[in-house]
Amino acid sequence: LPTNKDVKFELLFIGNELLIGKILNTNSQWLTRQITLLGGTCSRINVVRDVLEEISNVIKEILNRSPRFLIISGGLGPTYDDMTLEGLSLSINQPLRINKTALSWITQKYQELYEKKRLGDPTITPAREKMANLPSDSIPLPNPVGSAPGVLLKKGITNIICLPGVPGELKAIFDESVKSEIEKEVGKRYFAESNFFVKGIGESSMAPAIEEVMKKSSPYVYIKSHPKQDESDSIVEFHLTTPNDPQCFDKSKDFLEEKIKTAREELESKISKLGGTIILKE
Amino acid sequence: LPTNKDVKFELLFIGNELLIGKILNTNSQWLTRQITLLGGTCSRINVVRDVLEEISNVIKEILNRSPRFLIISGGLGPTYDDMTLEGLSLSINQPLRINKTALSWITQKYQELYEKKRLGDPTITPAREKMANLPSDSIPLPNPVGSAPGVLLKKGITNIICLPGVPGELKAIFDESVKSEIEKEVGKRYFAESNFFVKGIGESSMAPAIEEVMKKSSPYVYIKSHPKQDESDSIVEFHLTTPNDPQCFDKSKDFLEEKIKTAREELESKISKLGGTIILKE
Repeated sequence: LPTNKDVKFELLFIGNELLIGKILNTNSQWLTRQITLLGGTCSRINVVRDVLEEISNVIKEILNRSPRFLIISGGLGPTYDDMTLEGLSLSINQPLRINKTALSWITQKYQELYEKKRLGDPTITPAREKMANLPSDSIPLPNPVGSAPGVLLKKGITNIICLPGVPGELKAIFDESVKSEIEKEVGKRYFAESNFFVKGIGESSMAPAIEEVMKKSSPYVYIKSHPKQDESDSIVEFHLTTPNDPQCFDKSKDFLEEKIKTAREELESKISKLGGTIILKE
Repeated sequence: LPTNKDVKFELLFIGNELLIGKILNTNSQWLTRQITLLGGTCSRINVVRDVLEEISNVIKEILNRSPRFLIISGGLGPTYDDMTLEGLSLSINQPLRINKTALSWITQKYQELYEKKRLGDPTITPAREKMANLPSDSIPLPNPVGSAPGVLLKKGITNIICLPGVPGELKAIFDESVKSEIEKEVGKRYFAESNFFVKGIGESSMAPAIEEVMKKSSPYVYIKSHPKQDESDSIVEFHLTTPNDPQCFDKSKDFLEEKIKTAREELESKISKLGGTIILKE
């Protein structure tokens, strides 16, 4: 059932590699896309280094903004600079404790690897045990492909979810355990979208037309223009989407798609009159 | 001359497209890489939607943390949802005013496009004039490839720099006008790095060795391990870098490269003893 509420998400990525330009943050695009398709609203993305105080501070700030979900990615592994759980523990004042379920999963994982001769010694060393040391009241989420379990923890109205930074592990835990948590809060909600490209006219020449169609189709359509090059040799992509507006939440797929279709037709017609050429692909 | 200070940067990206998963944030990787190579420290990345209040709030929060640079990207264009300058104006309480230099650049740009027959009408419409409406005391930065000028504005110890979201425009303004501003603050500083890959041993088995080498080479080397797959079929990438530690700031290129080389050799030797195979490429 639709909740008729705007379900806000914040994302937090933890890892020096994202702040020195070593890694392209593909997890961010993947997660925001999944959340959007599920009908949630991602209102902010935060990225901090592997510094305990900075992790703990940013989590406190996010919790003060009371999103319904805080999804944290990175820093769940066995090395000295994996300190997400310690940072979370500090920020919410819930001490780290060995979680028996998480520890049994980790023990079993290393035992399996040993039996398959993919690992020399399955002993649960301090580095491995660390991955089961969760803030009190955490619910561990199984990791179908890696060692570090995910974590779910409710704090006030916020569902805090910790996922590994390794993309395959993040996606696997999200699909298996997080998606259903989101659906519980968001309900059944539809998202429609459409895009096309325009050649031969600059963004600034189309600005009044965009605003006009946007106002007319409000609150069911959001129009965003993305210039692909500078205006002198311009291709502009248009992306029409269902906004996260409460008035859209109980509408059917057909209704929302019809609104997008009408807005697109009006926009295309105005752009053609201004001298632009509609093309379907870049 | 080295300033012997840690020059902190925060980045702020503005645009719904980043929060609905439409766009992969390649600007973030590019900017953090440039800043790192110039000797700066990027301490946090923030991403918000095209919502005036959210833009203004996040800028206030960042300025309260007093970074030496705040680089903002996105929302400088001519459309209704380009509201970065309005948000900045609100957050620092400096009213928007038509900047004559910026307006003359924009006027000239559209006139040129008209003369080259790439644009129908060069009139400076309200949508185009908007791009010259800057917070008071702004210094406009020329845009060699697009229409919207960049902006430089000093507030307390923070250099606020606004750049377009279009990657080609962002890079061009950065290279032409921002790099030199950063060099003024950071001085001449070296950054060394090295990476290699390890097969046949999981991250958790190497964790104690990593910590040991890290401690021994402190404060000149930072070691980060990046598992590429789960531990059962593991390739782990190691990335050794010069940390942004004041004790590294006045060191020569040779000194820093030697420290990285020594740490790498020690780490490779320990990993080999543990049963891992060093490979140079993934």
